[in-house]
Amino acid sequence: MTPSNWYNIVPDLPVPPPPPLHPGTRQPVGPDDLAPLFPMELIGQEVSTERYVAIPREVLDVYRLWRPTPLLRARRLEKALGTPARIYYKYEGVSPAGSHKPNTAVPQAYYNAREGVRLLTTETGAGQWGSALAFACAQFDLECRIWMVRASYDQKPYRRSLMQVYGATVHASPSTVTGAGSKILADDPDSPGSLGIAISEAVEVAGANPDARYALGSVLNHVLMHQTVIGEEALAQLEEMPDLIIGCTGGGSNFAGLTFPFLREKLAGNLDVTLRAVEPEACPSFTRGVYAYDFGDTAGFTPLLKMHTLGHGFVPDPIHAGGLRYHGMSPLLSHMYELGLFEAVTKSQTECFEAGVRFARTEGIVPAPEPTHALAETIAEALRCRESGEEKVILTALCGHGHFDLAAYDRYLSGRMRDYALPQERIDEALHDLPG
Amino acid sequence: MTPSNWYNIVPDLPVPPPPPLHPGTRQPVGPDDLAPLFPMELIGQEVSTERYVAIPREVLDVYRLWRPTPLLRARRLEKALGTPARIYYKYEGVSPAGSHKPNTAVPQAYYNAREGVRLLTTETGAGQWGSALAFACAQFDLECRIWMVRASYDQKPYRRSLMQVYGATVHASPSTVTGAGSKILADDPDSPGSLGIAISEAVEVAGANPDARYALGSVLNHVLMHQTVIGEEALAQLEEMPDLIIGCTGGGSNFAGLTFPFLREKLAGNLDVTLRAVEPEACPSFTRGVYAYDFGDTAGFTPLLKMHTLGHGFVPDPIHAGGLRYHGMSPLLSHMYELGLFEAVTKSQTECFEAGVRFARTEGIVPAPEPTHALAETIAEALRCRESGEEKVILTALCGHGHFDLAAYDRYLSGRMRDYALPQERIDEALHDLPG
Repeated sequence: MTPSNWYNIVPDLPVPPPPPLHPGTRQPVGPDDLAPLFPMELIGQEVSTERYVAIPREVLDVYRLWRPTPLLRARRLEKALGTPARIYYKYEGVSPAGSHKPNTAVPQAYYNAREGVRLLTTETGAGQWGSALAFACAQFDLECRIWMVRASYDQKPYRRSLMQVYGATVHASPSTVTGAGSKILADDPDSPGSLGIAISEAVEVAGANPDARYALGSVLNHVLMHQTVIGEEALAQLEEMPDLIIGCTGGGSNFAGLTFPFLREKLAGNLDVTLRAVEPEACPSFTRGVYAYDFGDTAGFTPLLKMHTLGHGFVPDPIHAGGLRYHGMSPLLSHMYELGLFEAVTKSQTECFEAGVRFARTEGIVPAPEPTHALAETIAEALRCRESGEEKVILTALCGHGHFDLAAYDRYLSGRMRDYALPQERIDEALHDLPG
Repeated sequence: MTPSNWYNIVPDLPVPPPPPLHPGTRQPVGPDDLAPLFPMELIGQEVSTERYVAIPREVLDVYRLWRPTPLLRARRLEKALGTPARIYYKYEGVSPAGSHKPNTAVPQAYYNAREGVRLLTTETGAGQWGSALAFACAQFDLECRIWMVRASYDQKPYRRSLMQVYGATVHASPSTVTGAGSKILADDPDSPGSLGIAISEAVEVAGANPDARYALGSVLNHVLMHQTVIGEEALAQLEEMPDLIIGCTGGGSNFAGLTFPFLREKLAGNLDVTLRAVEPEACPSFTRGVYAYDFGDTAGFTPLLKMHTLGHGFVPDPIHAGGLRYHGMSPLLSHMYELGLFEAVTKSQTECFEAGVRFARTEGIVPAPEPTHALAETIAEALRCRESGEEKVILTALCGHGHFDLAAYDRYLSGRMRDYALPQERIDEALHDLPG
């Protein structure tokens, strides 16, 4: 039932996405530019124009521990809302690390190990990606070093413990073990960190060690492609095709993973479906960012990526959905947004946690803060259907559980959670520093 | 695939188990004695001699959220151990509360609601049972009040938050809101609590309120029967029959749930299988307790139960496997142990966590401290098979995940975890107070 291929949407798009550029020459980056950071197989997948890439047997052997994941109809939630809408959710929280992230962590670790790499470095926000990579590295005997955004490191000590149970080393970011981290700390010793800063630290260490490579948990084409196992399974599992698919977006891999196989069917004329991305009010790259070339990290170590960005210097407020606190967006999804292939909306933090509690009390699963964004929009849509009487079929991406986010739920339930308004000046200021 | 009946092993036993006695009259308790605490349907199930009880549709509708649960072969663990043994595990951690406990919480909440009860009270050790009952009460619109053993309340604040997400009220036990709790606190303001004390508190509150009843998460016959969905599913899922089944025992419901359907086949002559219970060195009721009538709680509010007990006044050391910190044992399992139907062994806390880390790094799942006892014995058996060359088929009960126990893993990984020797005098002293 788990698919035997990943789906690459790039060759099916009407216009190819713009390439990443070298920040110095402004020319498209080539394999040699990326070789210090990624193994050749993943560099090949990043620029592949093949529609399907076979999933290696060694990867399927690990996927088997939790895949296929459940596709459930939220009958108890529907009943509580009194809606004629039919709500389905694809639940990735049954994976070892508790989210969709191992879908790409496992192949990334596998390809690196196969090419002789000894150490993988990475960043993590909420800790979802870090624990996924730590788990994956344990499967292929790789050393793993993780820079965890300070705000999440402090809010979620047990995510750190989980990475350590899997055998990884975890640094709070900004850290003093890298030049990039030390520089930030010199300017702001109390920096809450950000994904952009943590990426700079992990990239710096990987780049300086020939036995090491870097692994990214979202944003890049190959990462989005690995996640399409979610959508392929959902296509096969659903009893009826959705009218609307809703997923949260941080770097975009969860949204892409569920929607791309459905979009393939839509582009082929087999399906009429609307896709909707949901992002946090505090970090609205699609809805309030610009579409421009920018760095993927804060320090400016990465190639220039054409994407929806709030500026690489933008540090989002410390909302609990740490996995969505990223200044940029997947270049592939950004391109597709410009092509009009999906919509985007924002949700406030408290509205999201309200949806999370509602979902837990009806369907039993306590969602991670990230997918509560999708649930908040799903509930809003289901309530609109109650008004209109429309029997809409909604599919939503429940990309992880919130077992390590109970401190955030505690804050919400005790009335101590706040929302963050984002003044336009903060965005304008960060966009001032766009390269070139 | 989820069974449509629970299996009651009592009519299949060669000798019926001894009845609970009224502590005053020493006569078997009747339905009237139990009516203030339990709904009539559960009282009927407690003494039932029917082999099968149909699972109500409303209960199956909730089971469907996570059942059937996965039955997996631990190929990666086998490989790491270099054993010819084949290891299978039945994983109950995919339930909303993360353990096997909702299997009985849901029917208990359902029957209570059907009989007009408004409030359920209970105790919880590690918090597994409390969060299961909180979830179940949310499904049937019941109020839920939970007394959580102080040692666990302090070690696992996020289990408390989980119960609150599901809408329950949580008290640290001993608490000042009951007579039983206040009395203990007067003697020992720093009491770490115990399941026995927490039971006294929950029973006291339920007994004093005609709209309230009490729910127990283990020990009783009807609880063990509800858990047989685990074993029935495993019987249907396994590709080959086990030579050995290993499960941890606190009150006994997890062990009974997995093993009873296999034992039915063994008693019918269809299967040759060895069953082995694993208990903590710090709370060894089977292996170092006596088989005698004793109270199920500390204060002496319950009927007298014939069981393996360390004495109702015994307070186990604060090991992290809070769900196994109980002075007694299921009377039904105790009777069956006397009949020689299974074996029992003990494991130390550090050996268990070593097994837990080993399992996480190979199979991905971080186990709760309770099932690490079963895993430690499973690994020991697999290593014996490596010596003997025996291709033994082992089935183990992985009754829950350890996502709320990462602080304990942190202690273990940092070398700060200790074991607890249990001097015979402590047991002798507690047994001094056995009733009658």
